[in-house]
Amino acid sequence: MSDTLKIGTKEFTSRFLLGTGKFSLEKTAEAVNAADAQIVTMALRRAKEAGSSNILEYIPDTVTLLPNTSGARNAREAVRIARLAREVGCGDFIKIEVIRDTKYLMPDNAETIKATEILADEGFTVLPYVTPDLNTARDLENAGAAAVMPLAAPIGSNKGLLTKEFIQMLIDDIDLPVIVDAGIGKPSEACAAMEMGADAVLANTAVATAKDVVSMAKAFKMAVDAGRKAYLAGLGRVLYQGGDASSPLTGFLED
Amino acid sequence: MSDTLKIGTKEFTSRFLLGTGKFSLEKTAEAVNAADAQIVTMALRRAKEAGSSNILEYIPDTVTLLPNTSGARNAREAVRIARLAREVGCGDFIKIEVIRDTKYLMPDNAETIKATEILADEGFTVLPYVTPDLNTARDLENAGAAAVMPLAAPIGSNKGLLTKEFIQMLIDDIDLPVIVDAGIGKPSEACAAMEMGADAVLANTAVATAKDVVSMAKAFKMAVDAGRKAYLAGLGRVLYQGGDASSPLTGFLED
Amino acid sequence: MSDTLKIGTKEFTSRFLLGTGKFSLEKTAEAVNAADAQIVTMALRRAKEAGSSNILEYIPDTVTLLPNTSGARNAREAVRIARLAREVGCGDFIKIEVIRDTKYLMPDNAETIKATEILADEGFTVLPYVTPDLNTARDLENAGAAAVMPLAAPIGSNKGLLTKEFIQMLIDDIDLPVIVDAGIGKPSEACAAMEMGADAVLANTAVATAKDVVSMAKAFKMAVDAGRKAYLAGLGRVLYQGGDASSPLTGFLED
Amino acid sequence: MSDTLKIGTKEFTSRFLLGTGKFSLEKTAEAVNAADAQIVTMALRRAKEAGSSNILEYIPDTVTLLPNTSGARNAREAVRIARLAREVGCGDFIKIEVIRDTKYLMPDNAETIKATEILADEGFTVLPYVTPDLNTARDLENAGAAAVMPLAAPIGSNKGLLTKEFIQMLIDDIDLPVIVDAGIGKPSEACAAMEMGADAVLANTAVATAKDVVSMAKAFKMAVDAGRKAYLAGLGRVLYQGGDASSPLTGFLED
Repeated sequence: MSDTLKIGTKEFTSRFLLGTGKFSLEKTAEAVNAADAQIVTMALRRAKEAGSSNILEYIPDTVTLLPNTSGARNAREAVRIARLAREVGCGDFIKIEVIRDTKYLMPDNAETIKATEILADEGFTVLPYVTPDLNTARDLENAGAAAVMPLAAPIGSNKGLLTKEFIQMLIDDIDLPVIVDAGIGKPSEACAAMEMGADAVLANTAVATAKDVVSMAKAFKMAVDAGRKAYLAGLGRVLYQGGDASSPLTGFLED
Repeated sequence: MSDTLKIGTKEFTSRFLLGTGKFSLEKTAEAVNAADAQIVTMALRRAKEAGSSNILEYIPDTVTLLPNTSGARNAREAVRIARLAREVGCGDFIKIEVIRDTKYLMPDNAETIKATEILADEGFTVLPYVTPDLNTARDLENAGAAAVMPLAAPIGSNKGLLTKEFIQMLIDDIDLPVIVDAGIGKPSEACAAMEMGADAVLANTAVATAKDVVSMAKAFKMAVDAGRKAYLAGLGRVLYQGGDASSPLTGFLED
Repeated sequence: MSDTLKIGTKEFTSRFLLGTGKFSLEKTAEAVNAADAQIVTMALRRAKEAGSSNILEYIPDTVTLLPNTSGARNAREAVRIARLAREVGCGDFIKIEVIRDTKYLMPDNAETIKATEILADEGFTVLPYVTPDLNTARDLENAGAAAVMPLAAPIGSNKGLLTKEFIQMLIDDIDLPVIVDAGIGKPSEACAAMEMGADAVLANTAVATAKDVVSMAKAFKMAVDAGRKAYLAGLGRVLYQGGDASSPLTGFLED
Repeated sequence: MSDTLKIGTKEFTSRFLLGTGKFSLEKTAEAVNAADAQIVTMALRRAKEAGSSNILEYIPDTVTLLPNTSGARNAREAVRIARLAREVGCGDFIKIEVIRDTKYLMPDNAETIKATEILADEGFTVLPYVTPDLNTARDLENAGAAAVMPLAAPIGSNKGLLTKEFIQMLIDDIDLPVIVDAGIGKPSEACAAMEMGADAVLANTAVATAKDVVSMAKAFKMAVDAGRKAYLAGLGRVLYQGGDASSPLTGFLED
């Protein structure tokens, strides 16, 4: 009866992951709660900072931390950041983010595969962030990834589900949870990803750039749940030609 | 604090309207409850039938009935059906549906305006179903409509929000509730309509053609609520070029 | 063998109509020639002006003039402008344009039908500009229109083929030439309209706002011809799932 | 004045490349001529076959052959096929196609980079076929590719320009010709790719699956030329809100 998301050895009932960049620390706890997020991402830098600005103080204890390797330009740097994250107490979950392009910030799939292999061997629960590509996803599966996180659109763009066709291939053919990450700009787009059969959605910029951050976090959670429910309920057919009346069109007046 | 939808003299807290065509009477009460629908549409024929098949027995008493004039091919017939609906106890709410095209079932905007004027004068709360068109919507406003119900796509097609551009004009320029009706096939599309600022969404075929009708009714309700919440929270900007990192990209390793 | 467009009693080999607003009179003849346009629209005002600014002096004699009733806010005004156009020597072709909305400039379908009926009775070859709507198109057919000109998007917006679904209904079900008008912003969009089976396309703003007006006029003409050729050649099927190799994928190395 | 496409040491005036799979040898010469194709792809197997079915006999001498490595499942096999192609007289141009996925036939970007490096070193003019990805394209540039051939959609699907966003990045940021390959199903889509600034388009299945193969080849050529011309002419702005009349809307009747 329970519909849970399993990643590594953990199990989650929430399928909405929240990123914590670009908005104030003060809003963090409130947003995480509104989002009912059980996994929260943050840059390691923000976890390492001393004093009151350490983001960890603002994230509820019940939440699984998913530090990312933001700042890494290759596999070696990503591995180094991951190890540091574990050392400073962020746990075994790690989101691999390797970016050498500074204009569009597109992930480097090849370096991400390398880092995944190394870190999976070291016992990390590895969630690699990639441009959706079936061959890359298969390589990540073989490398020991615990999930795959394909981007919907360039990070921070709020452009929506531009890679739909390619994410669908991963959903259909890869035996790992597919968590749509980056580019989702509206709850309706998160809902659509879930309707396609994605296992979860992560949002950050779409929440952070809303006028009311906390309400938007909640709206995303609701939309993700709606999309999951619709997926499980089985969407109806699309009619490619003509219309089909819900109500009887003829005969009434002749009764 | 309360965010209510006002139509005529009534006020509703739910913004999801459910149509009851194409699925079994037995599922009706359950679906209405799952959808938390406060307004339910049905063809008058189904309310007039004798015996156990009368749909009204399956619709909770707390719900506002919205009989439609399905079967009407012109204003005269729509008016006649509306009066019958009132006579048989369906109340004052009436959805005008005038269809003379039997292939695509596209509403006749001109005849709908005429029927609206007559019925509004007779004290009905008139909700006209139309192809979205700014001039038609202004005429309906002048004719005394209580709301305008533009179609998203051909009725029963599940094709989604094809008329987005033209529904947006109604939302921005018409001082009546805009209830998106017909063609919505997925909860994500209902959510998107609400994010645009629509006041409510009606679905029927999308629910009726789902594998699990009751769950899909619930999924729609959740998506509509998510879209409304997102609209009120204020959506973030879309970045047309490049990306924008949520996490700091540089400097970490140099610390 | 010849693929001609018949409107009223005239026959044309070009399926690209050019509007002449928003760019300099000096470029007009050159653009008309580059576009190989055989029908050219212009506001009557520009044909009536005295002296060197009269646009008619810049339009080649071989071209059929299609004055529009721009400025008309109802059927009566449109009829008056049409009659004036004939009086000042613009001929019998008239494009009905009735606009009472000053923000989106959406045509008034109901008033356009009225004007069409009156002018068709007076022997005009009437080309009404409308929001695409199957019932309106049928009424225009009955009213004696010589063609129907549905908009692709709000006039002057360059937004492209937003009303595709509804234009397709007209192409499939109306026995009049369908000329897509307004909103087309790129040659590829004009090409797509022709591939759908539209009989012709009119562009104005897309040409007028290009950096090089004359080259863009030519590009549109080429794209319209390409789309027509593709329509006649019969487009291939779309594969909804998977891929399909053009070249043999296996066996080669085993030869 | 001349607008030519340079690939390796050769220069072309046509920007439409034709693939020769899936249609009869007898139509090949006619289609190549109708398409005005100066570069033609084919599987090496078809060039190696003995007797009358050797495709090379059907391709005009003036055309540059672009054999592909179809059938290769990794870099090693691709390199082997490329060398064979040169040996049997197909010249120095080679399209690298490495496919290990047999369902969607998605190219393996990583193996393609390896093969490109080896073959470029051996003096081939290498045109690698890839899933569009900015990092991959940069690696191909560094590996000595002469152009990059990103897919628009799964090969043979006719689904159109699904990867628009990611192809645009290559056009904007990579100093190699970008030739859009695979998935283009209609001339309008080829035209749109050229309007974005692509250097050329290759089609095969869209031509081969048309009712009239030769006419469709010609339609594609025309659409590619139209798109190129539009790109050079400079597309006009898109208006995101409201409309903008081409003709004067007011004052006429007051003259």
